[in-house]
Amino acid sequence: MAHQPTARTPADETPGERRGRDEERRWRTAITRIEKNSILLRGYAVDELMGRLSFAEAIYLLLRGELPTPSIGKLFAAALVSSLDHGVTPPSTLAALNVATTGAPIRASVAAGVLGFGAFHGGDIESCMRFLSSGLAEVRAHRSFHDVAREMVASCLEHGKVPIGFGHRIHTFDPRAARLLQLAQELELDGEYTRLVRELERVLQARPDAEEHPMPLNVDGAIAAVCGDLGFDPALANPIFIIARVPGLIAHAYEEHSRQKPMRQIDPADHIYDGPPFRRLPETRR
Amino acid sequence: MAHQPTARTPADETPGERRGRDEERRWRTAITRIEKNSILLRGYAVDELMGRLSFAEAIYLLLRGELPTPSIGKLFAAALVSSLDHGVTPPSTLAALNVATTGAPIRASVAAGVLGFGAFHGGDIESCMRFLSSGLAEVRAHRSFHDVAREMVASCLEHGKVPIGFGHRIHTFDPRAARLLQLAQELELDGEYTRLVRELERVLQARPDAEEHPMPLNVDGAIAAVCGDLGFDPALANPIFIIARVPGLIAHAYEEHSRQKPMRQIDPADHIYDGPPFRRLPETRR
Amino acid sequence: MAHQPTARTPADETPGERRGRDEERRWRTAITRIEKNSILLRGYAVDELMGRLSFAEAIYLLLRGELPTPSIGKLFAAALVSSLDHGVTPPSTLAALNVATTGAPIRASVAAGVLGFGAFHGGDIESCMRFLSSGLAEVRAHRSFHDVAREMVASCLEHGKVPIGFGHRIHTFDPRAARLLQLAQELELDGEYTRLVRELERVLQARPDAEEHPMPLNVDGAIAAVCGDLGFDPALANPIFIIARVPGLIAHAYEEHSRQKPMRQIDPADHIYDGPPFRRLPETRR
Amino acid sequence: MAHQPTARTPADETPGERRGRDEERRWRTAITRIEKNSILLRGYAVDELMGRLSFAEAIYLLLRGELPTPSIGKLFAAALVSSLDHGVTPPSTLAALNVATTGAPIRASVAAGVLGFGAFHGGDIESCMRFLSSGLAEVRAHRSFHDVAREMVASCLEHGKVPIGFGHRIHTFDPRAARLLQLAQELELDGEYTRLVRELERVLQARPDAEEHPMPLNVDGAIAAVCGDLGFDPALANPIFIIARVPGLIAHAYEEHSRQKPMRQIDPADHIYDGPPFRRLPETRR
Repeated sequence: MAHQPTARTPADETPGERRGRDEERRWRTAITRIEKNSILLRGYAVDELMGRLSFAEAIYLLLRGELPTPSIGKLFAAALVSSLDHGVTPPSTLAALNVATTGAPIRASVAAGVLGFGAFHGGDIESCMRFLSSGLAEVRAHRSFHDVAREMVASCLEHGKVPIGFGHRIHTFDPRAARLLQLAQELELDGEYTRLVRELERVLQARPDAEEHPMPLNVDGAIAAVCGDLGFDPALANPIFIIARVPGLIAHAYEEHSRQKPMRQIDPADHIYDGPPFRRLPETRR
Repeated sequence: MAHQPTARTPADETPGERRGRDEERRWRTAITRIEKNSILLRGYAVDELMGRLSFAEAIYLLLRGELPTPSIGKLFAAALVSSLDHGVTPPSTLAALNVATTGAPIRASVAAGVLGFGAFHGGDIESCMRFLSSGLAEVRAHRSFHDVAREMVASCLEHGKVPIGFGHRIHTFDPRAARLLQLAQELELDGEYTRLVRELERVLQARPDAEEHPMPLNVDGAIAAVCGDLGFDPALANPIFIIARVPGLIAHAYEEHSRQKPMRQIDPADHIYDGPPFRRLPETRR
Repeated sequence: MAHQPTARTPADETPGERRGRDEERRWRTAITRIEKNSILLRGYAVDELMGRLSFAEAIYLLLRGELPTPSIGKLFAAALVSSLDHGVTPPSTLAALNVATTGAPIRASVAAGVLGFGAFHGGDIESCMRFLSSGLAEVRAHRSFHDVAREMVASCLEHGKVPIGFGHRIHTFDPRAARLLQLAQELELDGEYTRLVRELERVLQARPDAEEHPMPLNVDGAIAAVCGDLGFDPALANPIFIIARVPGLIAHAYEEHSRQKPMRQIDPADHIYDGPPFRRLPETRR
Repeated sequence: MAHQPTARTPADETPGERRGRDEERRWRTAITRIEKNSILLRGYAVDELMGRLSFAEAIYLLLRGELPTPSIGKLFAAALVSSLDHGVTPPSTLAALNVATTGAPIRASVAAGVLGFGAFHGGDIESCMRFLSSGLAEVRAHRSFHDVAREMVASCLEHGKVPIGFGHRIHTFDPRAARLLQLAQELELDGEYTRLVRELERVLQARPDAEEHPMPLNVDGAIAAVCGDLGFDPALANPIFIIARVPGLIAHAYEEHSRQKPMRQIDPADHIYDGPPFRRLPETRR
């Protein structure tokens, strides 16, 4: 329980004394500066950013304080796109749908969905960054990537655990993970995190039972590698996932309001997809 | 209160009968299709989208069901960038900060902040879309934009109200609004909503007391015009604002965790900005 | 979007001037007074209330500003007890469970569940209070309860609607509603709201097809009548339901953490009750 | 991210086989049983509970599965009453107020407030239960309460920490804590947790600088002791605090809507209490 004094400290000081004290006492923020007819994000006029930075680049600027290079902006955007949505079965989406069916506004669905990014859902990116980080500490102590990766895998398997960032309930190959690492390489942004992840992948694929029990790199592991190489604080990993997934939560809550009747019972296993069949991007967008 | 039967209907039917009934009874979703090793967003493989669509374009696809043209993607991104953050004083940000200071995870701050986009905050875009829409119904009934705008303004002022989408507590000129309309024009995406907004602007500027009591087009009004011309359902206006502002809420919650001590009392008027001073985008980004 | 000035008004005034201005400018609250070693709720020392007021009585004091009589405290408690829980199928409970299965803390489940008390769920008490209120306005204009009730029912049925506060998806007789009205009568707290509800009940039961299509008074209708007679602002009806149901949300989230494995898919229709079978209160508690 | 299969397992089995499998596969809940015209909470008909159990007793039944004795019901109620509200300055209340000022419904304020019961606010009861529990493990290993308490205090002070459950920002004596322990004693419900807390109190008061730096037992510590002696799972401590405080959050959000203008900037230090002055309970309630 919070226990703050409600009584204000009486201040029988002169105006000059007070201004000095006030300056000292004020709390500080380095994100946005608002003045009459001017909004600066990290020092840049927001109207100058509009039309010149992509949304992903502007998010990067807001979170990191500095502009990304165009390559970094592109890779960061790809990481966000990779996690936009995973259909109606994740519990976060179901929380959002169950709130939507009561007639609550979409923002309530978003709040409920975001609250579902708990330890076991959406939290893997951060855990994987820390897992990789601990491995890289070994590498920096003059051990080879291969030896470190072997040890990391062995230690997990011994405890009956799949290394974090690997394995998937339905996918035996996660196309998002593969594509993200490919982009990191193409954009020359793959560093030691990516290298360790690739080494872990190799060690896992060399297991004798790799085919029966596949443990593919998953999208969380790939994002963790990319975020690590881009220098993100692991504490921002879950928030990045939130930014990526909020549009998905909104799409589902909006669809619930538009297509379903209120107060229905939602059985996650009982849906059918009736959207567009598989289609390719037009030539001009590839 | 919800009152759903908990007893399942017994089903002493044959497997064939049951499959037919099941198909019929299933609920439908058109957003995302998940199959083994495949994630399709609105029919497109998410790994094909990564690196090829910007984050804003992919959000547009998710919300609307179809790809935006590159111009639409650029304008939609600018609308999102315009609303990324408005400093520490909006009540939504203060809700997020007050949750952050208790040691709660960033996702809890995001949820609290999003819940603060209520009727009086973040809700203006939708109301303005509906306001403009009612005016455009008049225009379509063969009346001139100018006459309709004059009537709309007169009716508001008579009731002592500033037309929704206009006026601002601190800004007498909202640079975000001006920039967004400029971009819409440059990208040749300005339609009847934008035209009506410009007409309303002119009528308001022609008031005898326009200088003492400025009622500039604000960023909500400009986004409403752009969303109207892009054909967005007004029910998506508040969600679009949520998508834009979530990164801002995250930046503030993260800063609270990083720079402030826990359980502090947050006086919104008592802060000082200590981030980078005004700076211009490098030549290459302009 | 919020637009508050961030610049503080400089104050080159004397301390005396400032104190006067400050007093004037301060915002006011009449709920709780905190001073060193003293916590007053509505003027009463909280430590004096402890052990002397029931939890329901203390809640009543907090919401209304004055102590309830013992009879009012008892009736208010019964209304709260009536809505403690309705099993795992209401969407609010499912939102809470879906958040719990992700490993989120119970408070996140409570938040998600509470957000599910939207227009179609938990909102009926307020709507019913307003519905009854409109009928009582007629009664006060010198019309009989019976005539007013007949007209209210006729107007609903004409529009194909069940009168709000009546009807139930599974119950053809809502034992909570009957018990609450019985208690109101026993405690001599039944007033005009209760009388109108009883009259509506009679009119509905007199329908020719009352047996095939029962429209029993439901618990929301009974709480609405009781809250109306106790003089509650309808704006407090949904909050009273929240107070009643939060312990239920907690019980379910706690059970989810205790008994289920994480990240499961929750099919609301697919559960089985394995708690204690029907049992009676011991003699001493009746 | 969640990865559940969306494909249903095909079931070409006979109805009999299917019923067997279904029974096995169903998930279980032991809280509430809903059948036509019957709602059982932990086996008791809710309509039989109404008017016979207090709200606190019914909450206890719901959380624990069994009826409390009247003494336990009374002590549990006192614990809930103790935490009903702590004025406008706790960050949870400020989060609720900041959401309320945007025009959001009270349930959104409740959700935001509840999310503010994070690690540093509302979490102390659970931490204190675990702290006391670790001490009691020593006691059970045949060491005296006094020795264990001395060691617990010494270990905290060595690390520059106030023992959890002790100390307060404004109160040098927490009247709620004293009253709760007094009630536990009167009701003969004080066990080993209470005994250890009293011993810790004595050791802390014997410090040479106890007067200058008071570390009184606070309300969280007292509730922790009582919950420990009542056998509550520490995982229910924070939820019990939520149940207690939700009415307070509601009272503040309702007052914000009733007395303040929308979209105001809320400075927590800048309020003034204008409710009833100190008053005593009437003789009949003491």
